Amino acid sequence: MTAVLFPSTSGVVHGRFASHAFRLATCTALLAAIPAGAQDPLPSWNDGASKRAIVDFVRRVTRTGSPDFVTRPDRIAVFDNDGTLWSEQPIYFQFAFALDRVKALAPQHAEWKTTQPFKAVLDGDLAALAASGEKGLAELVMATHTGMTTDEFAKLVSDWLATARHPRFKRPYTDLVYQPMLEVLAYLRANGFKTYIVSGGTVDFMRVFAERVYGIPPEQVVGTTFLTKFATGPDGTPALTIEPKVAMIDDGAGKPVGINTFIGRRPILAFGNSDGDHQMLQWTAAGTGARFMGLVHHTDSTREWRYDRQSHIGKLDKALDEATTKRWSVVDMRSDWKVVYPFQRQR
Amino acid sequence: MTAVLFPSTSGVVHGRFASHAFRLATCTALLAAIPAGAQDPLPSWNDGASKRAIVDFVRRVTRTGSPDFVTRPDRIAVFDNDGTLWSEQPIYFQFAFALDRVKALAPQHAEWKTTQPFKAVLDGDLAALAASGEKGLAELVMATHTGMTTDEFAKLVSDWLATARHPRFKRPYTDLVYQPMLEVLAYLRANGFKTYIVSGGTVDFMRVFAERVYGIPPEQVVGTTFLTKFATGPDGTPALTIEPKVAMIDDGAGKPVGINTFIGRRPILAFGNSDGDHQMLQWTAAGTGARFMGLVHHTDSTREWRYDRQSHIGKLDKALDEATTKRWSVVDMRSDWKVVYPFQRQR
Repeated sequence: MTAVLFPSTSGVVHGRFASHAFRLATCTALLAAIPAGAQDPLPSWNDGASKRAIVDFVRRVTRTGSPDFVTRPDRIAVFDNDGTLWSEQPIYFQFAFALDRVKALAPQHAEWKTTQPFKAVLDGDLAALAASGEKGLAELVMATHTGMTTDEFAKLVSDWLATARHPRFKRPYTDLVYQPMLEVLAYLRANGFKTYIVSGGTVDFMRVFAERVYGIPPEQVVGTTFLTKFATGPDGTPALTIEPKVAMIDDGAGKPVGINTFIGRRPILAFGNSDGDHQMLQWTAAGTGARFMGLVHHTDSTREWRYDRQSHIGKLDKALDEATTKRWSVVDMRSDWKVVYPFQRQR
Repeated sequence: MTAVLFPSTSGVVHGRFASHAFRLATCTALLAAIPAGAQDPLPSWNDGASKRAIVDFVRRVTRTGSPDFVTRPDRIAVFDNDGTLWSEQPIYFQFAFALDRVKALAPQHAEWKTTQPFKAVLDGDLAALAASGEKGLAELVMATHTGMTTDEFAKLVSDWLATARHPRFKRPYTDLVYQPMLEVLAYLRANGFKTYIVSGGTVDFMRVFAERVYGIPPEQVVGTTFLTKFATGPDGTPALTIEPKVAMIDDGAGKPVGINTFIGRRPILAFGNSDGDHQMLQWTAAGTGARFMGLVHHTDSTREWRYDRQSHIGKLDKALDEATTKRWSVVDMRSDWKVVYPFQRQR
């Protein structure tokens, strides 16, 4: 769990730097790959190998009579969330939620003033937080994500998303989704794909915003889960209480497991951005017929962040090697994307 | 797990009796509830309170401007499988699969000739099988459902379904689905519902036939799950191996948990047949807005089986009491259904 939600805590001290205004040259030329007259389904993508690979793949599997044709029910597309559909720096957004919850709950927990890792959070002492290790981070998660009903937790997340602001961009976290990936999601759905999130984040956190932000309904969100317990209250009202115990970790080798458990079909398209997505990509690649495996490579230190092999968050190393060898699509954020976030689009 | 797949083992000795031919009087009268000219969506249902309740509910939640209108994404309908969509006598069909697998595997397990509970299965010794208790039954499940890849298991189930015959009806088990319930599933889907199975049976067993038989795709099958493990073989091919450990028991209080984990929305319609479905019905009932809670009551000793409060399989006791108090729909199989199985329909 902690390895999922939280990287090695030194990631917390990752630099924040001022937002750079990004001005986009107006670009209306249609791509060669798009038939004349057809609207470009991916307007925020520059023409290039990544865009062509996506469009070519969708055409191949959807055109009747194509040797690679795939029936609609089997058009399953899976996307990692953190770093693939929205940003994950300077810390996973769900971890930012956990830290804010610790601060909000502190008045009810006088003991936290003197107990680690809570003291570290309240003091803003990143070194002490890092020193608390995975055990400490697990405590933070359990204290902020469990011990309440599923409805109560959803309300907390919803309220937080409405008020919290990202430290660098001073915007709601849900503004920091990738415009080009929103276009890929919509394009796939318009072509009969079912789009899923398969993330190390927890299901009950992501389901609060996935439908509104990504158009992905709750039942198509796969993620890390806690045990929940059904009980009927004194007035006969049943409730599900989130227990402080992880049921399934949906990261790394847990992703194919999550896909098999929740979806029960092998995807034909998978998009990730880190080694935590490696096995999901391998599992997708190992199916028969046409496949698409993609990685978002964070190469843009100006508009977003630049990191890969050495990063404490979203480390991309082995999966990048395999992507290169196997010719999976590696999206170069800096050169492939005209804009990163929706708010950067020209009106 | 055993409590799910297997009732108290004395259920195994339930009688088998000869199939009775069932002749159905031709009935073409349209129901009063169905507008003149409209095709009856539930032709295998006799006019009565159950049919009216289903049709009325669907109309109320789907008619634009209705005070009970529910948007399409929230039209989630959940169905238990054993005893609700297909028969479960004289033993759960998945248990019949397990017993057949023990017999098929016996040549590779010389030790089973002298080891319980395997010896009991091989000898047809039901008393000894019963004496092995839940622990023994769990051993049978683990020996027959785990220790192989997900693909290998699916193939075994598929082959078994193609060749195994039900002891009473001498037909493939998948012939013993309820024609009236197939009509309810189709009727709901035609009205924008997403139909789910939520069953104590295991996901990997049901997914093999759910799409073909019920029109329910793999991703809409919720059930008991085993842990699975991802590993890459020497040739680089990844596989998921089923481990001999239950991950989630989707029965009783586990059903609302399964619904929340897999679907993440509260259903507006739930159909079950036993106390194992009680909490699923309570969870559905506790939502706001129009709701439908239904129970299939096995009242037909001629065409199917008759059992409820005292049964070792599909015991229906507390849920029946609550259904009566709360006025949930209790389907009387004998009087509500014109036919039970598809093969009994007049051509």
